[in-house]
Amino acid sequence: MPSREQHDRMANAIRFLSMDAIEKANSGHPGLPMGCADIATVLFTRYLKFDAKKPHWADRDRFILSAGHGSMLLYSLLYLTGYEDITLDEIKNFRQLGSRTAGHPEYGHAAGIETTTGPLGQGIANSVGFALGERIMNAAFGNDLVDHYTYVLAGDGCLMEGISQEAISLAGHLKLNKLIVFWDDNNISIDGPVTLSDNTDQAARFAASGWNTLKIDGHDPEAIAAAIEAARKSDRPTLIAAKTTIGFGAPTKAGTNKVHGSPLGADEIAATRKALGWSYEPFEVPAEVLDAWRAAGARGAQTRAAWEERLGKVDAGQRAEFERRMAGALPAGLDKAIADYKKKLAEDKPKVATRKSSEMALEVINGVLPETIGGSADLTGSNNTKTSQTRAITPDNYGERYIHYGIRELGMAAAMNGLALHGGVIPYGGTFMCFSDYARPAMRLASLMGIRSIFVMTHDSIGLGEDGPTHQPVEHLAALRAVPNHNVFRPADATESAECWQIALETEKTPSTLALTRQNLPAVRTTYVEENLSARGAYELAAAEGGEAAVTIFATGSEVEIALKARDLLQGHGHPARVVSAPCLDIFWQQDEAYRAATIGTAKVKVAVEAGIRQGWDAVIGTDGLFVGMTGFGASGTIEQLYAHFGITAEAVAKAAEGRLHG
Amino acid sequence: MPSREQHDRMANAIRFLSMDAIEKANSGHPGLPMGCADIATVLFTRYLKFDAKKPHWADRDRFILSAGHGSMLLYSLLYLTGYEDITLDEIKNFRQLGSRTAGHPEYGHAAGIETTTGPLGQGIANSVGFALGERIMNAAFGNDLVDHYTYVLAGDGCLMEGISQEAISLAGHLKLNKLIVFWDDNNISIDGPVTLSDNTDQAARFAASGWNTLKIDGHDPEAIAAAIEAARKSDRPTLIAAKTTIGFGAPTKAGTNKVHGSPLGADEIAATRKALGWSYEPFEVPAEVLDAWRAAGARGAQTRAAWEERLGKVDAGQRAEFERRMAGALPAGLDKAIADYKKKLAEDKPKVATRKSSEMALEVINGVLPETIGGSADLTGSNNTKTSQTRAITPDNYGERYIHYGIRELGMAAAMNGLALHGGVIPYGGTFMCFSDYARPAMRLASLMGIRSIFVMTHDSIGLGEDGPTHQPVEHLAALRAVPNHNVFRPADATESAECWQIALETEKTPSTLALTRQNLPAVRTTYVEENLSARGAYELAAAEGGEAAVTIFATGSEVEIALKARDLLQGHGHPARVVSAPCLDIFWQQDEAYRAATIGTAKVKVAVEAGIRQGWDAVIGTDGLFVGMTGFGASGTIEQLYAHFGITAEAVAKAAEGRLHG
Repeated sequence: MPSREQHDRMANAIRFLSMDAIEKANSGHPGLPMGCADIATVLFTRYLKFDAKKPHWADRDRFILSAGHGSMLLYSLLYLTGYEDITLDEIKNFRQLGSRTAGHPEYGHAAGIETTTGPLGQGIANSVGFALGERIMNAAFGNDLVDHYTYVLAGDGCLMEGISQEAISLAGHLKLNKLIVFWDDNNISIDGPVTLSDNTDQAARFAASGWNTLKIDGHDPEAIAAAIEAARKSDRPTLIAAKTTIGFGAPTKAGTNKVHGSPLGADEIAATRKALGWSYEPFEVPAEVLDAWRAAGARGAQTRAAWEERLGKVDAGQRAEFERRMAGALPAGLDKAIADYKKKLAEDKPKVATRKSSEMALEVINGVLPETIGGSADLTGSNNTKTSQTRAITPDNYGERYIHYGIRELGMAAAMNGLALHGGVIPYGGTFMCFSDYARPAMRLASLMGIRSIFVMTHDSIGLGEDGPTHQPVEHLAALRAVPNHNVFRPADATESAECWQIALETEKTPSTLALTRQNLPAVRTTYVEENLSARGAYELAAAEGGEAAVTIFATGSEVEIALKARDLLQGHGHPARVVSAPCLDIFWQQDEAYRAATIGTAKVKVAVEAGIRQGWDAVIGTDGLFVGMTGFGASGTIEQLYAHFGITAEAVAKAAEGRLHG
Repeated sequence: MPSREQHDRMANAIRFLSMDAIEKANSGHPGLPMGCADIATVLFTRYLKFDAKKPHWADRDRFILSAGHGSMLLYSLLYLTGYEDITLDEIKNFRQLGSRTAGHPEYGHAAGIETTTGPLGQGIANSVGFALGERIMNAAFGNDLVDHYTYVLAGDGCLMEGISQEAISLAGHLKLNKLIVFWDDNNISIDGPVTLSDNTDQAARFAASGWNTLKIDGHDPEAIAAAIEAARKSDRPTLIAAKTTIGFGAPTKAGTNKVHGSPLGADEIAATRKALGWSYEPFEVPAEVLDAWRAAGARGAQTRAAWEERLGKVDAGQRAEFERRMAGALPAGLDKAIADYKKKLAEDKPKVATRKSSEMALEVINGVLPETIGGSADLTGSNNTKTSQTRAITPDNYGERYIHYGIRELGMAAAMNGLALHGGVIPYGGTFMCFSDYARPAMRLASLMGIRSIFVMTHDSIGLGEDGPTHQPVEHLAALRAVPNHNVFRPADATESAECWQIALETEKTPSTLALTRQNLPAVRTTYVEENLSARGAYELAAAEGGEAAVTIFATGSEVEIALKARDLLQGHGHPARVVSAPCLDIFWQQDEAYRAATIGTAKVKVAVEAGIRQGWDAVIGTDGLFVGMTGFGASGTIEQLYAHFGITAEAVAKAAEGRLHG
């Protein structure tokens, strides 16, 4: 345990590295690293279980910097404790293009960055997934292999964001007692004192959702230590409200919003050096301080070695399974199970909603993959996310596979990201597609991080009927396709549903959204094909007959049925027509040019039909292509009324195409 | 005051109308109307200030059904109290296409529907705007003209959504004591008991944010009345936690999730008729019950007449101003002020960020319009939303014009919607454009309702630099343009900023988003033109010289500067080139075909340059058009590094165009 003086010097090393890096970058947020250096020093030198030289150790504690703008706190810690990814040069290159030390912590840039943070509240909501993932894996593999804490550092902004309430109430409900959140209670936001816009008693709020709450002086090392020890003994998640001074040490700017998001300036930094007795050059860390930090970084090596020894003694099958799951590899049985299932579908030709065929596919998948963890934001029966293998995870039983996320779409998506990042599990969760808008900030982060979160979005168009325009996605397919590195699947029948699920599972570095219907759809894939046709993104489902295609009809999901009927009408009128099903345009655009050109084809008339807006389809059909879909919001009515009212019918498609053929 | 028996019969009229309408539609949510009929009956017969025959009376109390799926509660009340828009036929046409009685309450379908609800939590967050709007107008026009309550009925789902926390904490901070929220505490969500996913002590949570809280039996009329009276005396907003039985009266389904979202079925309805002693045919309301309800609907007529008398006695100028503001009409001075300002800009040619020129335009606007109410989600200095005329609204002074919304983007957007719906004010509010993702559910509702909320989204591209990809919009322009009835403006300089602001203010039925830069931009409009060129959505900013245009470059915002430089390069190489600035593609697509065709033009090469994704641009440039922009997420670095790294430069544009010209 460091002496108080040693503690202060170690904490000041964080402060000055942060100040210096931000000053050099002329950009960044010094206030948090300076204010939270004491908390971080106590946590990293005395409690956090990690081994800087083996940073991916599965049973490490996780540290989540939810207040991501304080990134220099994390980078300083990683450098000081000896993570190899973060060298002093990286610190000096803070916020420069190509550095590992981006403006906000970016998952994948360096070991020790457990998740990407910056959009406020995301980290604390991720942490619910981390902490739950730990319990799930603990239930599967026991204390010997899985027994770690999730520590979070959150700011006022994280707690003001609504997502925090979803996270807090879910964590409290699930009694995630290994989740320990520090609140950097400095009463400063960008506009000024937090009291400009908030007077919430945060501890009371957390307590209302079943949290253990503690209040401490965030600059008192022993108080910090005592709070961590108390938190670790709690049977509930713990909030440690740590009263801090933002920009601690800066003589004129500490405690004000001036230190929040701008470099301190040379004069203030010089004055801070003087005030804190830090007589070193910029970026210089005195040897004895660095040594102490490096010792802290090596502190966990023995624990890690002991853990590896335990792992080595585990039954070989169990060990292989643990390692497979933590590596995110799929079990060998999946392909055959999907193939068998597709064969059965080709025989059965079920006419079911794709939300139902998604459930049917999940029934197969969940039978083979013990690592899938399902859930829904209180729409289980509508999203069809629960299968025979999954029962509710409760505070008394983390050994199950279904999460009742509650009416918390954003909290769900963020917790799913945390589960995926923790490792060992593959999360999927459902809501109505219209409410992907609520979940969007976390869905975007899944894409940015490149993780395997799978979002099940049912009721994907006006086809949901009477609930009306507040519940009817219109722009959502376009808006989700717009997100980089995000696969939006819209299967047309049970076979495509199975194929899309298979791709979603196999795509480790890209999250997926499955857009699924409420209404029943006929089988459009009626013969078994071994190849996963959906993996091309789009493919010819029905060829033209009687000559070169005069018309190509592109469609997705529920409109493939309409496209096929329109093709029949056109063929009946002597116009050879083909149908391209496009279950995933994102993947289609990644195909080689020859395949894309062949699939789009050269028919005189190109029509796309989708019960959404046109945006994005011009790239397929051209500006002179025909589009049959929506131009505005939907309406409340029966599905039959709505498709007729909005003119999304086979007759309309055929008529439009014929008009163009004759025009 | 009705006797208990009379109360019960009046409440049962709501229950049976709701059951019958849902049964006839074979779709809907009977649980809430049955469970909350007692609350609604007490509120509407004894407290709510309204006049069913003059439903738009400015000083009426507002009733917000936040739990919008319980729409039949509201429709029953509107029919029973005698609102002319909701006839018995409308009740019978519940959820049918073209009816006023949509699946969820749709603003504009009928008087008495104060806001569109359905996405959970939106109504309670709107209500903060309603209640604040009341206080702002009260401060401007006094108790004689403005003195009313905002009542909300919220369900468990509303309170589980994170947005509720943003609403609660903001309302508590602002001490909106005329805001009274009933919580329909029935412990049932769609998946089952709320305790499947939540154990929050809601009263304690509200209390933590400074609310007055009361707990009552939601089926006891006198307890309901006493709570309302106590709430009206409070100096804080009030939560009335009303313990209810969902589906009250249904013998076998009440108190379970079976009654939440499905028709009861003929047998259960028959049994409910028996249990509640209701011997009438479907949709039949006995005369004496209807009479009592109609009397309740006429209860406010005298109060309304007295208010009109007071209004008549007000100073004519003040009265005209009140009526102008409530009508949402702009003052006469705006056009001239903008024209004068544009003349000055043509002289000054300021090189400023568009977030700054937005502020400059607002400085002009706020000087002419007393009704603009600004704000920011804790990014005031970054969003440039505060002008010399606006100071912070505080619980002690509602007579100001600036709202520190706190770090609550979604709560801000929803409160803005409430302000706009209340009337008398025009709300604008800012955050970083990337965090439009948080605000999106409320922005969509603004579009669906067709109201004048103005969203100021700064830091609109990689041009924000070092904060990196979590803060850099890439897909957001496309994703927001995808929303129907939503104008996305991206001005290129100070003149376009002023023009876009003018359009946003003049567009009463469409909300606007202004996408604004962090970085400085030169003036591209250097001579005064009276016409608002941006009102065409896109227009030729620079013509080709020396012949027909070989190249047309389309650009928006910060990339117009790049387009102009690329044009210079091309002209210098002997290629006549023109530039089209497109400050609002949404509006451009509404222009007549001739204008669109002329603006797009017939140049051999069409290039679009925008620091976002291509999606949506194919419609302008064609599938063979060139696009210079982003294909994935941004990165952390300086603005110069980033534009060069991602190849968004004048040289790249010119080179691509020349490659095509020579190709």
